[in-house]
Amino acid sequence: MTNTGLTPLETLAAKVKEAAKVLNIASAQERNNAIERIAANLLSHEEEILAANKKDIATAKENGIAPAMIDRLALTSERIAAIAAACRQVITLPDPLGKVDFGATLPNGLEMTRVKVPLGVIGIIYEARPNVTVDAAVLCLKAGNACLLKGGKEALHSNMTLAKIMADALREAGLPAHGIALVEDTSRETATQMMRLNGYLDVLIPRGGAGLIRAVVANATVPVIETGVGNCHIYVDETADLAMAVDIIDNAKTSRPSVCNAVETILLHENIAGELLPKLKERLDQHQVTWRGCPRTQAILGEEIATATEEDYATEYNDYIICCKVVQDMEEALMHIDRYSTRHSEAIITEDYAKGQEFTRRIDAAAVYINASTRFTDGGEFGFGAEIGISTQKLHARGPMGLDQLTSWKYILRGNGQIRK
Amino acid sequence: MTNTGLTPLETLAAKVKEAAKVLNIASAQERNNAIERIAANLLSHEEEILAANKKDIATAKENGIAPAMIDRLALTSERIAAIAAACRQVITLPDPLGKVDFGATLPNGLEMTRVKVPLGVIGIIYEARPNVTVDAAVLCLKAGNACLLKGGKEALHSNMTLAKIMADALREAGLPAHGIALVEDTSRETATQMMRLNGYLDVLIPRGGAGLIRAVVANATVPVIETGVGNCHIYVDETADLAMAVDIIDNAKTSRPSVCNAVETILLHENIAGELLPKLKERLDQHQVTWRGCPRTQAILGEEIATATEEDYATEYNDYIICCKVVQDMEEALMHIDRYSTRHSEAIITEDYAKGQEFTRRIDAAAVYINASTRFTDGGEFGFGAEIGISTQKLHARGPMGLDQLTSWKYILRGNGQIRK
Repeated sequence: MTNTGLTPLETLAAKVKEAAKVLNIASAQERNNAIERIAANLLSHEEEILAANKKDIATAKENGIAPAMIDRLALTSERIAAIAAACRQVITLPDPLGKVDFGATLPNGLEMTRVKVPLGVIGIIYEARPNVTVDAAVLCLKAGNACLLKGGKEALHSNMTLAKIMADALREAGLPAHGIALVEDTSRETATQMMRLNGYLDVLIPRGGAGLIRAVVANATVPVIETGVGNCHIYVDETADLAMAVDIIDNAKTSRPSVCNAVETILLHENIAGELLPKLKERLDQHQVTWRGCPRTQAILGEEIATATEEDYATEYNDYIICCKVVQDMEEALMHIDRYSTRHSEAIITEDYAKGQEFTRRIDAAAVYINASTRFTDGGEFGFGAEIGISTQKLHARGPMGLDQLTSWKYILRGNGQIRK
Repeated sequence: MTNTGLTPLETLAAKVKEAAKVLNIASAQERNNAIERIAANLLSHEEEILAANKKDIATAKENGIAPAMIDRLALTSERIAAIAAACRQVITLPDPLGKVDFGATLPNGLEMTRVKVPLGVIGIIYEARPNVTVDAAVLCLKAGNACLLKGGKEALHSNMTLAKIMADALREAGLPAHGIALVEDTSRETATQMMRLNGYLDVLIPRGGAGLIRAVVANATVPVIETGVGNCHIYVDETADLAMAVDIIDNAKTSRPSVCNAVETILLHENIAGELLPKLKERLDQHQVTWRGCPRTQAILGEEIATATEEDYATEYNDYIICCKVVQDMEEALMHIDRYSTRHSEAIITEDYAKGQEFTRRIDAAAVYINASTRFTDGGEFGFGAEIGISTQKLHARGPMGLDQLTSWKYILRGNGQIRK
């Protein structure tokens, strides 16, 4: 506690909230100028960023962090250039603010408009990827929001340097430096405090693995948007084009297994399982995909296939592992999906019009596909230009969250003396 | 715990969730038929409802509940007829589901549509007004949602009867009875459990006083929409039409002081305070409004006016009490509002174009008015036909929540074999 009665985190959050009041009403030009300044300063401070990142890498290696994670942590000249280029890409996107998305002249003559405004202050808790520090801050800024960032401790030096460069850029662009702020205390206690910053944060977005998301949902008292967990399915109907099915499943499983829109379980109609499975196995063998199957899958592919357990069906492996279940009909597939789905992305492969319609109607998920790979659930692919995550909840934002999902609304009513009877 | 390992509340919630799967995909006609059946059955079961209500009233009187609260609790033939009429009014509203609010053919040929779908299961915690039981359930149903209702213990018998009538009506209409369910255990422990029904509730809406809202925000782990608290202000600029100012303030304070969109504090520009205050006092005296003023207000109106404290400025009295502060300029008014506002409804009275523009731009609230009463912030007045509450948060819904705010979205993507490069 300081002598104001605020914790250090609250003191910082109060400054961010003050900064937000200016950012929230800054013009699109002012916000874009600040983003350009951020891009330019990232490039001109490359050495400083790389030096800070080196410290993080050295500590990570001392601590025996896995090579894949060190790769995600590492910055290079090329990666910094890519981050700056991504900032400039955001400048080119249309302004999400100020749009009137609803309006009417009321019977009493009041002229009502509903206008898009910033959310205010956005908190983001994420893991050890320093590029997220810039990506997230710049998207928040483009939508007129201040942000309070808390990254993983592994990236602390990198994040401190990046946050300072961005705060300085804001100041140089004539906006308050605290519009982008980093929580430098990476303890769990401070993370929990951050989840309870009611009155300071308008929303908190966790970006990371299932454990982080669960901790935020369990502890947060501020509004949260859940992102990311994807236990995705593809159902292959008896009428499917089997060559298409092989291509789509291969793509959905192996093009990038570590991401949330990769497929985890396939459900095959019993009438095509016998013909499809050997072809599919041959294709996935090229990527050393491990199979876990139901007894009927095992009967077709042979006993070297491990038995798929309840836990397998419930797990998002994010790896070269696929679960397979042979089903009697689409109804059984729908029941399986309803039970295990995280409501992210689900697909059917079918040539039957009515089955496709029924599948899209019945599936409860952010994205439902007919005859396409689940891998398309992505802000860039959907044409949003950029995204801050993929929401798997139903409130406020569902699916890829672009700039539009980082805004709120206000009603403006212009009258000439109206009173309510 | 039952032998399924679920608590009684979870057992009930699981049934509601199952019912939701059917309701969520019911056609508009099926949902409207069920609402008509509810209206008809409420009317045909009038005696049963009045008998249950009598028990509640008797208990309330024994417990010395305040007459105003007993009035809110009481049902009569007329009130039941009004509730049934409100149901039939909801039938006439446009279907909020199925609308495509965004869509595109992506460069790869995928045809993407974003479609309005139900939220799923909506939890509502409210206080002792049995009419809310029907109003809320019917709005949820119209938008394809199942609902889990928890009303105040004072209205338990009335609510049980109303919920049973509605559940039976659903069944008679061919929809699952558990689409509308009441939590009959009115303890605080069960309320807290309900706030943590992750996996069962898609959103929880508290309807009631500030204490209830605070408890929900502090304890809920499910997504919440905060409603209702309104510490509203009217700023009277030096250019205001003073007769208009008197009419608007009178309306905003005295037409219904108990509601959230009533004004609590007025801020008067120093150049017109001397002329306006005596006129305004004369008008508000007709309703025995009590004043609390800053020293300058006291200097103008005389010392019988109590001094307005920090606490007065921060309080939503919902009563015939008004706080008044004389300010130097609009800037001081904006600072006062920013400090004490609950971001519900704020108004300026001015004939100066630029001041009006600046006020609407700078005020951060659900509704901002120029030259009109704050009392218009209401779903009916805004043309939504009905509302389930007024959201004072920025996520998902802000301002009056009509049927549209009880929906979510899903993306449907129709392809012909697309895979991601």
